[in-house]
Amino acid sequence: MATLKDVAREAGLTVSTVSRVLNNRGYISEETRQKVYSVMKELNYQPNEVARSLSKQSTKTIGVIVPHIRHPYFSELVSHLESQAYQHKYKILLFNSKEKNEKEREYLEMCTSNRVAGVILCSGTVAVEEFKGLNIPLITVERYLENGTAAIECDNLQGGRLAAKHLIESGCKHLIHFSGVSETAMPADSRAIGFRETCGAMNINFVEAVTSAYQYNNLEYHDYIEAALKENPKVDGVFASSDLIAAQVIQVCAKLGIRIPEQLKLIGFDDVFIATLTTPRITTIHQPVREMAKMAIELLISASEGKIVPSRTLLPVSLVKREST
Amino acid sequence: MATLKDVAREAGLTVSTVSRVLNNRGYISEETRQKVYSVMKELNYQPNEVARSLSKQSTKTIGVIVPHIRHPYFSELVSHLESQAYQHKYKILLFNSKEKNEKEREYLEMCTSNRVAGVILCSGTVAVEEFKGLNIPLITVERYLENGTAAIECDNLQGGRLAAKHLIESGCKHLIHFSGVSETAMPADSRAIGFRETCGAMNINFVEAVTSAYQYNNLEYHDYIEAALKENPKVDGVFASSDLIAAQVIQVCAKLGIRIPEQLKLIGFDDVFIATLTTPRITTIHQPVREMAKMAIELLISASEGKIVPSRTLLPVSLVKREST
Repeated sequence: MATLKDVAREAGLTVSTVSRVLNNRGYISEETRQKVYSVMKELNYQPNEVARSLSKQSTKTIGVIVPHIRHPYFSELVSHLESQAYQHKYKILLFNSKEKNEKEREYLEMCTSNRVAGVILCSGTVAVEEFKGLNIPLITVERYLENGTAAIECDNLQGGRLAAKHLIESGCKHLIHFSGVSETAMPADSRAIGFRETCGAMNINFVEAVTSAYQYNNLEYHDYIEAALKENPKVDGVFASSDLIAAQVIQVCAKLGIRIPEQLKLIGFDDVFIATLTTPRITTIHQPVREMAKMAIELLISASEGKIVPSRTLLPVSLVKREST
Repeated sequence: MATLKDVAREAGLTVSTVSRVLNNRGYISEETRQKVYSVMKELNYQPNEVARSLSKQSTKTIGVIVPHIRHPYFSELVSHLESQAYQHKYKILLFNSKEKNEKEREYLEMCTSNRVAGVILCSGTVAVEEFKGLNIPLITVERYLENGTAAIECDNLQGGRLAAKHLIESGCKHLIHFSGVSETAMPADSRAIGFRETCGAMNINFVEAVTSAYQYNNLEYHDYIEAALKENPKVDGVFASSDLIAAQVIQVCAKLGIRIPEQLKLIGFDDVFIATLTTPRITTIHQPVREMAKMAIELLISASEGKIVPSRTLLPVSLVKREST
C-alpha cells in the first residue's frame, strides 16, 4: 500500500507539504494541491486513519453495546445510531452482549483499548464498579447507571398512563399488564407505575404480570402469556411493555380462540417495525427511537469534546392507534 | 490516561521490560511480571490497541456493510456475524448502506483508511470498479461480485424447488411467487428458477410477480401483494422470497378475507425471527444464517492471513413447516 512518503517522492515534494495538503493547513498553491491529489490517485493512496487516530488520541469511533441485535427494538435503535453517527462522520463498533456480564466487561475493555470516543450502552447488567476509571463518555439509552455521563430515556411514566387510558376509554374493564424484567431496575419500570396510577384513578381492575430476565434473554413469552390469560379469563385489555411481547400475545390469543380487538384489546410499547408486521397490526406507544439515537450521538460527541452535557434527557411518547384496539 | 512509560517508571523497570511482559516475549521473572501487573492495575493502565494496530498494520476489526439493519434477515445475520467475530477476538464496524451507491463507496473508504482486516459485504449496488485496488479480503454473503475474495450463498435453487414441491404436495393448484428485485442480479434469483422448474415438472400453473428495488429499499409490499392477489383470484398457494414479504401477505389476506392456510397456503424464505412472530407462524425455507456467518468470518480471517480460500461456498437449505401451510 502506498504511504505518504511514496506520494511525496512521486510528487517531488516534502512529506510535510503533502501532509499540509491532506490536513488543509497553511498556504498551499492550487498547483501543488492538484499535483498531490493526482499522485494520490495514481498510487491509490489511502490515508491511514489508524496513524491519524494515534496522533490525535481519538478515533471517530463509537462503541455501541446492545443486549440483542435481533430484538426488533434494538435493531431499530442500532439502525438509527448508525445513521446519526454517519452524519457526524463517526463509525459504530457494534457489540452484542446478550446481557452476559463477563461479555460486557470484555467489550468495555475492547472499547477503551481501541480508544473509542465514547460508549453508548443499551444493556443493563454491567456492575457499576466496571465503569470506574473509564475515562470516556458513557451514554445510556433506556438504562440506569449511577456514574454514566448522560442518560436518555423516553417518558415511560406518561406511556403507561396513555396505554391504560386508551384501553379504558375503548371499553375494557379488566386489564393485565405484562411488565418489565423483575431482576433489573430499568427506566421501563415506570410504564407499570403510570399504568397503575391511571387504573387506580379510573377505578379499573388490573393484574400485573412481571416478566423475567430469562424470558427477556430468550425473547420468548408464549407459555407465560398463555398461563396468565387462562388464570385471568375476564381480561379484556392487555398492555404489553414491548411490541415483541404484544406480537406473542396475538399468537396466544389465536391459539386460545380469543379475537383481537373484538374480545380483547391489545396495546404494545416501542412502535418498532414488528408492530406493523403482525396481523392485526399493533396499537402501541411510540417511543421516539430516531430522536433518542440522534440525542445519544450528539451528547456523546459533545462530551468527548469536553463540553458539559445534561445528565438526564427525557423524550416524549405518543399513542399510535392501529388494529389491535 | 496512564502510558506504558508511566507503568515502567512506577515499577522501576525499563519500557522494553514492561513491553516484554505485556507481549509475553522473552524471559521475565515471576516477580517482575507480578510487579508490572500490580502497577498496571494501580495506574489503571489500558493497553493502546490503536498503537498496536499501527505497528502490526492490522486492526482485528471487520467492516460489515448491510443494506438495512432493521430488516429481520440482516439483523439476524449481523447478530451471528458479531458472535462469530467475538469468538475470534475480532470486532465489527457496522455500516448501514440503505443500498445507496455513494454511501457504500464512502463506507469502503472508511474501511480501508481504518485498516480493517477485511470487509463482509451483504449489500449489492456497489459498482464493480469500486473494488479495484482494495487490498483487503472482501467476502460477500448472498451477493454477486466479480472480484470478491469469497462468496457465501445458501442453495437458493434447491430452496425454490422445495417451496414449490411443498405447496403442490399440500394440494395447491394455482401458485404465485413474489420473487427478488428485478433491477439487481442476486443469488436469490435462483429461488425463482428452482420454483419454475418444479412447477413445470409437476405441471402446475404459476404466476411470477417480480418485486422492485424501490419496494426492497422501503421494505413495503402491501399494495403490490394486494393487486397481485386481486388480479389472480384463483391463487391458492404463495411462495414469498422472504419472510418479511410473507408477513405482509398474511396482512393482505386478512384484509381481503382470505383464510390462511384453509383457502391459501403460504411459504416464506429465510427462517428468521419474524417467521415465528406472525399469526399464523410462517412455513419457510431455512437459510443457515448462523453457519453462513461463521463461514464468512472464518474465510475472512484465513484470507487476511494470506491463505487460499474457496471462492464460492454453497450451504444447504431445508423446509421448516409451521402454521401457514
